[in-house]
Formats: sequence, C-alpha cells, structure tokens
Amino acid sequence: MKRKVTLKQIAKELDVSISTVSKSLKNSSEISEDTRLKVQAFAKLYNYKPNNIALSLKNRKTKTIGIIIPEIVHHFFATVISGIEQVANEQGYNVIVCLSDESFDKEVINLEMLANGSTDGFIMSLSKETQQKKDFHHLQEVINQGMPIVMFDRIANEILTDKVIIDDSLAAYQAVSFLIEEKRKKIALITTVDYVSVGKLRTDGYLKALEDNAIEINNDLIVKIEDIENCSNIIDPLLNENKIDAIFAVNELFAVVAIKAALKKGIKIPEDMSVIAFTDGIISKFSTPTITTVSQNGVKMGRKAAEMLIERLENEEEDERYRTEVIETNLIKRESTKT
Amino acid sequence: MKRKVTLKQIAKELDVSISTVSKSLKNSSEISEDTRLKVQAFAKLYNYKPNNIALSLKNRKTKTIGIIIPEIVHHFFATVISGIEQVANEQGYNVIVCLSDESFDKEVINLEMLANGSTDGFIMSLSKETQQKKDFHHLQEVINQGMPIVMFDRIANEILTDKVIIDDSLAAYQAVSFLIEEKRKKIALITTVDYVSVGKLRTDGYLKALEDNAIEINNDLIVKIEDIENCSNIIDPLLNENKIDAIFAVNELFAVVAIKAALKKGIKIPEDMSVIAFTDGIISKFSTPTITTVSQNGVKMGRKAAEMLIERLENEEEDERYRTEVIETNLIKRESTKT
Repeated sequence: MKRKVTLKQIAKELDVSISTVSKSLKNSSEISEDTRLKVQAFAKLYNYKPNNIALSLKNRKTKTIGIIIPEIVHHFFATVISGIEQVANEQGYNVIVCLSDESFDKEVINLEMLANGSTDGFIMSLSKETQQKKDFHHLQEVINQGMPIVMFDRIANEILTDKVIIDDSLAAYQAVSFLIEEKRKKIALITTVDYVSVGKLRTDGYLKALEDNAIEINNDLIVKIEDIENCSNIIDPLLNENKIDAIFAVNELFAVVAIKAALKKGIKIPEDMSVIAFTDGIISKFSTPTITTVSQNGVKMGRKAAEMLIERLENEEEDERYRTEVIETNLIKRESTKT
Repeated sequence: MKRKVTLKQIAKELDVSISTVSKSLKNSSEISEDTRLKVQAFAKLYNYKPNNIALSLKNRKTKTIGIIIPEIVHHFFATVISGIEQVANEQGYNVIVCLSDESFDKEVINLEMLANGSTDGFIMSLSKETQQKKDFHHLQEVINQGMPIVMFDRIANEILTDKVIIDDSLAAYQAVSFLIEEKRKKIALITTVDYVSVGKLRTDGYLKALEDNAIEINNDLIVKIEDIENCSNIIDPLLNENKIDAIFAVNELFAVVAIKAALKKGIKIPEDMSVIAFTDGIISKFSTPTITTVSQNGVKMGRKAAEMLIERLENEEEDERYRTEVIETNLIKRESTKT
C-alpha cells in the first residue's frame, strides 16, 4: 500500500507548523500568500489527499475522548477509566471506551472508527498482539492527522507521544527488596509470558533486587503463566519441600491462587511464607489473608493521562515536545507479609 | 420545550410504516405518489424537522453498537460487555462503551452523543438516578428516531423495547429456599437501598421464600447498605449473640465483608452459618471460604442482548412486537454453604 503524504510530513518538509499547512490548504487568509502557495504546490506535487476529518479538527471539536484498552474484566483498567472520567467530567469532556480484546486488528478498527469524527484524541493501552507485532502504524497515522494520543501502562517507545507509566522495574525491585528485608531468601516470581512489556520490566526488577542483595538467581523459582485456568498446576510444585519462603506475583490472581494452594498444604502466611502481588485490586482487599500489593494507582494514572490529553487538545500552539509522566507506586501492606 | 413530531408519530397517525414515512420524505419512487404527498403534507403541517441521522439510518449503517452502563468497576457489567463483544465480533459489529456513572445527565449526554451518527443501536442498563427520577424521555426519543434499544438488568417497564433480564425475585427465592433446606431459620438479608429495581425484586423473593416456609419475617434481620465503605458497621451487630444462622447478600462484596467479620467473631462457615451472595464475581471464587453464589450469567445476558439488537438492525421489516428474554440463573455451590 502506497503511503499517503501526511500533513505532518508536509509541515516538516517545508519547516512550518501543521496548523500552517492545514490553514494553507484551506486557503486561510491568516497565512501569507507566499506560504500558502508553497504548501499547496507541495501538496499537489506529492498528491496529498486531504483528510476531511483532520482538516476540520481544529474547527469542529467533539469534546470527546476515546479510550482504547485491551480488556475490561480487569480492575486496573477499570480504575484508570474512573480516573479519566473524573477529569473529563470536570472539564466538560465525554468519554467513549472501546476494547481491543488483546487483538491488533480490533485495536486498528476501533482506532479508525473513533478517529473518524467521534473523538478529539485518544488515551490508549496497547493490546498484547500489538506489542508482539510491534506494528504501530495505526497510532502514527492518527497522530499524523493531528489527533493527540496519550499512551499509558502498555506503551510503545517507538511512538513519539505523551505517555503515563509507572516504573514497573523499580516497583518490582522495591517489592522484592521488601521481601528480602523480611529475611526471605527463596523468593519465587510468578509472572506472565514475556511479550507484554510490563511483564519483562517487572522481571528485571525482581532479578536486580536479588543481585543487589547477593541472592543467587534460581530459574526454577521463576514461573511463567499464560492461562489463569491451569495456573494452580504450575504454581503447586513451587510449594513443595520448603522450596520457597516468599512469592512475588505480577498480578493478584496469581497471588491468591498461590495463597490458597499454600494454605491447603499447611504453609502459614505470613509466618512461613510472605506474598506480595502487583496491582492493587479488589481480591487483595478481601482475600484471607489480605494481600500486600504494589498499587499501580490506576485512578491517578487515568487522571494524569486525561489532564495531558486535554491540555494538548486545548493548547492552540502545536507543541512537539512530548512528556512521559511516571506515576509513583506504593506498597500497600496487608496480612500476607510480616512487617 | 415543544416536542417535535417524530417519524414514528407521523407513521402512527397516517397508519403507515416508519420506513414509508422516511422514504416519502426523501421523495423515494418506491412509495406511491399519493402516500408521498400525504406524508409530506402532514410533516409540513406539524412542522416536522427531519433528523438527518434518522433519515439516513436505513442507508448508512455504522455497524457499531453503543453500550451505556452505570459503571465499569463491577464484574457483572464487565461480563455482560464480554458477551456483547463476542456476538458483535462474530457478526462484524464494533462496540462502543459509555458510562453513566449512575448519573441521569451523563446517561442522556452519552445517549445523544452516540445516537448522533456513531451507532446503529443501543444496549443499556439504567443509572440509579434514572431509575429514581423515572424519566425515560431520552430512550423514547432515540427509539422514535428509529434506533433500536435493548435494555438489560436495570430496565424500565415503561419503555416499549426489547429487554433481557433475569428473574431477580425468583433467583432470590431459590437462594433463600436453599438456605431453608439447609435448616437455616434465622436468615439475614443484606441488601442495598430500594430504588434500584433489582434490589426490590430480590427483597421480594427473600420475603416470599420465608412466607412460603412459614418462617416469621424479622425486620431486624434486613439491613440496607448505601455505602460499601461503612458496611461492616452495619453488618457487625447482626453477628452478635446467635442472632442469625444464614446470610443472603445481594452482592458478593457484602457477603465477603460479612464472612470476614463472622470469622473474626469465631463463627464457623458453613458449620455455624451459611452464606449465599447474588452475582457470581471474582471475589466469591477466591475468598476463603469460597462463596456460594447466584450466577446472573452476565456473558449469556450480553450475548442475548446483542443477538436481539442485531436481529432488529438487520431485519428490513419494522416489527413492533418487543420481546423480554429471561436468562436463567443458577446457584453455584461453594464452601460457604453446607450441601
């Protein structure tokens, strides 16, 4: 497929702003005749096809934010949406949510659908498949059309845009360090398969905490789970014969399954074993024992993402400097750890 | 505000179909001249303002379904969305989700926004505020414009449209009857305040089960909770001095809070007390003990709602007969009951 020349490319080529290109193509009297003719000639030369949506963007605001997330049966994403909704409501914006169901194609379809006049900009977290394929052309096209995107949590470093993340590696490092402070030496990591970026970062943090504390890395204690349905089969062997004295799980579901299996084997928590889970959800609060978690502060992330997007939408000037905001995580101490 | 005459009203008045009215107003040659002139004259007389969206509906399909639900941090609604997504994907439809946050105004705004060319039809569950106000004009207007709505769970009997519900009263009746079969006589009901229709229906089922089994109703055993934050203060007194031997809770959060409070007081579950919760969510599966629940079959509800909506969207003929589908509930027996 032949790539169209975009507003942004014309702007870059002629060293003017996107808004100048857009206005020139609409023959706006705000732009000097010289510039207008130059832009128009260039656009003609490169067979620029105006995208009506993009051209009308600066005039016809929808006052709507599009959110595209991988799934909804997931407390973290739900809390991020709550945060976005809070700020959007305060500032008079509507919010539309679409789900990629972890599918690249659905992500592309949803983005195109919403970019087609329904929203002013996007807040997104990538699908697993998109992260595996590393194909981000759909994001780039939307950005080229002049619609800002704020990415959160599962981001693409390749795309120049505003981002809201937590420092997954540091958060994992701190959680594992906390277990080490509790005199735990045989710390298991229960994680997902690697292709989701945050999974890899959390593993890095786990490994670094062990290294910095001169604890030998034992690959047998690192288990990767693809499917929650059979995770107890994978976790169970870890719990035999005093193999471990602590668990760091990358989500609370893995943690609660491990805790239930441990209790059945007579392992006392936190006396015999400490457990920390990533993501502070509803399960950790209500399980027995309650679970110490790393809070990703989903509401805060959502609020920050919405603030960044609305700021960009309402700023008349194009600003090519993009920011990456790091939201602080914190350990919420509950009954599954000793101190 | 003066109400516009709608396509539907013209159709009714002249005893023709909505599609005939629509086509007549577009001067379609499919319609006899006689009818066309009659419709046009009537429309002019009553100052009919064509709604471009409505007129173009039969031609320009968006192939998109709009979902408007009260909240998203709620496992039941998330599962319904999953069910809708499944059927929509199978049939080539996109799905857009908007949240009312339990607010009437937000529900109206979201509905208007999505009805404005973004979607072909809606699947909705009403906000608490809408149920309190009993103001459903926004739904009626969308239906009048020719956009079908399927309501689920929190429905309005006043609106003629397709609906998907469970028999909340019967489901509660069966759950409480099950507790009575377990020889429980002092059964507490932990419910929400009454204005959400399903809360009232579940209370009705509870009361009827007691009556049918000749168990005296004790109003002290019925507690209503508005705010989850302080629910343990309200639940705690129930657990003193052998006051109760079973709990029927209208959601799993109330149940898990009650169980934790009971365990702290040394009450054994299910030996001393049985617990059943409405709504099969993620907490019930992972709490200790696991909780016996009434499954609302959210995925099934979502699938059925999507099937009904798509059927109506793809049916050329207007069908004024509306259906209410009742999805069966079932008791998922876990550790919090004896049998």
